[in-house]
Amino acid sequence: MKIDRFQAFSDGIFAILITILVLEFHIPTYREGHLLTALLAQWPLFLSYAFSYFYVGTLWLFHHDYFSMLKRIDRNVNILNLLMLFSITLLDYPMSLVADALTTRNRADMQTAFIVYDLVALFISATFYFMYLYLHRHQELKNPAVTADFYAVIKFDPVRSVSIYGLAIVGTFWSIWLGAILLAGGIIFHFLAYLRMSKQLALAKGSAA
Amino acid sequence: MKIDRFQAFSDGIFAILITILVLEFHIPTYREGHLLTALLAQWPLFLSYAFSYFYVGTLWLFHHDYFSMLKRIDRNVNILNLLMLFSITLLDYPMSLVADALTTRNRADMQTAFIVYDLVALFISATFYFMYLYLHRHQELKNPAVTADFYAVIKFDPVRSVSIYGLAIVGTFWSIWLGAILLAGGIIFHFLAYLRMSKQLALAKGSAA
Amino acid sequence: MKIDRFQAFSDGIFAILITILVLEFHIPTYREGHLLTALLAQWPLFLSYAFSYFYVGTLWLFHHDYFSMLKRIDRNVNILNLLMLFSITLLDYPMSLVADALTTRNRADMQTAFIVYDLVALFISATFYFMYLYLHRHQELKNPAVTADFYAVIKFDPVRSVSIYGLAIVGTFWSIWLGAILLAGGIIFHFLAYLRMSKQLALAKGSAA
Amino acid sequence: MKIDRFQAFSDGIFAILITILVLEFHIPTYREGHLLTALLAQWPLFLSYAFSYFYVGTLWLFHHDYFSMLKRIDRNVNILNLLMLFSITLLDYPMSLVADALTTRNRADMQTAFIVYDLVALFISATFYFMYLYLHRHQELKNPAVTADFYAVIKFDPVRSVSIYGLAIVGTFWSIWLGAILLAGGIIFHFLAYLRMSKQLALAKGSAA
Repeated sequence: MKIDRFQAFSDGIFAILITILVLEFHIPTYREGHLLTALLAQWPLFLSYAFSYFYVGTLWLFHHDYFSMLKRIDRNVNILNLLMLFSITLLDYPMSLVADALTTRNRADMQTAFIVYDLVALFISATFYFMYLYLHRHQELKNPAVTADFYAVIKFDPVRSVSIYGLAIVGTFWSIWLGAILLAGGIIFHFLAYLRMSKQLALAKGSAA
Repeated sequence: MKIDRFQAFSDGIFAILITILVLEFHIPTYREGHLLTALLAQWPLFLSYAFSYFYVGTLWLFHHDYFSMLKRIDRNVNILNLLMLFSITLLDYPMSLVADALTTRNRADMQTAFIVYDLVALFISATFYFMYLYLHRHQELKNPAVTADFYAVIKFDPVRSVSIYGLAIVGTFWSIWLGAILLAGGIIFHFLAYLRMSKQLALAKGSAA
Repeated sequence: MKIDRFQAFSDGIFAILITILVLEFHIPTYREGHLLTALLAQWPLFLSYAFSYFYVGTLWLFHHDYFSMLKRIDRNVNILNLLMLFSITLLDYPMSLVADALTTRNRADMQTAFIVYDLVALFISATFYFMYLYLHRHQELKNPAVTADFYAVIKFDPVRSVSIYGLAIVGTFWSIWLGAILLAGGIIFHFLAYLRMSKQLALAKGSAA
Repeated sequence: MKIDRFQAFSDGIFAILITILVLEFHIPTYREGHLLTALLAQWPLFLSYAFSYFYVGTLWLFHHDYFSMLKRIDRNVNILNLLMLFSITLLDYPMSLVADALTTRNRADMQTAFIVYDLVALFISATFYFMYLYLHRHQELKNPAVTADFYAVIKFDPVRSVSIYGLAIVGTFWSIWLGAILLAGGIIFHFLAYLRMSKQLALAKGSAA
């Protein structure tokens, strides 16, 4: 199987998801002449949207760079990828839930919303773990320039992410804001892990050239 | 006609449909502090969504592998494909209907929702049947490595699917849960049929290489 | 400018539009146990959806075949194409309007909805007219195998379409059903015109080979 | 990194955004028999939609031509591009706000809506500024035919745009209609700047050939 159509399909899903997030913005009901106040009260939605956009964007960068090291794919990669994309498309819903709960400021509801977001993020990282593992066991799919050194650098990233989101779930029971910080930290961690992976991949390809 | 643009257009529709399914998740109205209870009551939506995602994903895998055996397409393939994609995009609506009916638990409404889903699934399988038939009669469009043996293996799949969904419609009148199991069975059958077709196709291509 | 990215962008818009039409299906409010009755009352939506899908699908087939005769595009083709796609994306709204008006059965509202649909269809055909004209005057963009004979066959199609929709507007004032038949006739005419253009194009390419 | 997947992903986002703008059209509540009056009262939505479509279309043309001068991209271009696309997807919301505020005709709300639109437009132009700057400092990414002359012509465009939108914000406090004209002027300026850039690029490529 050639990798082009696989990438185009995945890119399509990423592009659609990252764009339809904006559909969650709805004009709030407001007293005439008070649109400004109503919009300022929507800061949780903007925050949740900006973070989710950043998160999905980072996942796309990951997907883009990571799969560029493959020579070809097989059926199982296709199926694992569908599972990964399934977990990522789910993000649209907790984004709204977090925005909504931050608006009402109810403690129990904020806990619920953050934990749902954490669970989806944990699920996403778990699918990356399975993908890494599968491709590690099927070296024949990879570009030979990308060696075991590369895998050694990245293999614990999904485990780290899962741990951060697991901690975030526990932390949320203790304190909403600790939970929020851990969730944001998880997303920022992905971005840093992406930068490192990307550099490592450039090295691996460069040394082979 | 070249096959690239045909595949890209089809992939686009699959990618969009599979992503916008998530737009059916709406925050339920809930008493402050009871978001968790409200979310748990949404299990039918999650179930219906997960099954429909799995279904559309399987249909994409089918489409992806099946059309990879063509050398080129003609106008009729393009038109039949639009009909196939029409039937598939319809799935978004019965997905919501099933989720909604499972939430109210009204027997008559659940019957209606399942039967609408069955009818759309039956329609999808029927379009596959016509596509298989057309391509069987136009061997000049196919990669010569893919022989009559391959067709012999897959040709009854759409007939089997249509039968399962037909049975599901009848079964739903008798018992909702029998109907639900047959519907789920039909979707799982597609996945198994995909795995078999995919193996067969790899064999056919391999023996020609 | 290469034609690939132009086609991919256009295909993307067609694929998205044809898929999001389904988002206009909303679960009607219904008395528990009467979902079936409520769904059957949605026949105008299904009809309007099926026609609009068929219409957008036909426009895609046109776009697909017609632009396959170009060697390259220039900036003006890109801009005219954006205008054409603008007119086509508008279709989503009159589709809903027609469905809604057919549900209430109010004569004045049905007239309004049909005329809005006619106006959008007329606008679409007008953009095709300008595209045909522009490309006729810039033969250097075309595949040399596609000669003036081809243009002679197709050049009046947009004029014919504009006339049909103009007639449909006038007819709607006289009788709703006459207006509906003319509108449906216009859409079916596009499909027949597509079939003819497609055959003519195959001839032109064949005679050059 | 190859530029194809980068362009396809960006094109996907542009195509989706420009198409989903139409989802903001909703059937207004109207007294039976008065659909026409209700639709005519939606002129602000149509106007805001048409302008936003034209704006996003122009941004796509820019993106399309501008990045055609690159030989390859690096990670930072990918990240800057995600930021640029983030700013562009935001447009969907102020489009609705402007349409809504123009419908109620409340002065304060119209000011708010226009200023939100201006801020998003200013943000978009700022991301273009950073992209221009980054690529100016990384000539190794560019097609060598595109020289410093080209950059000299275009480098102040984002600064000009930012100034126009800054003026529009100030102007809106003074007079709604002045603000509206400046906003519309900014969007038209983009189109003219695009035409100039596109000609300049054709010259640069031509002189190298």
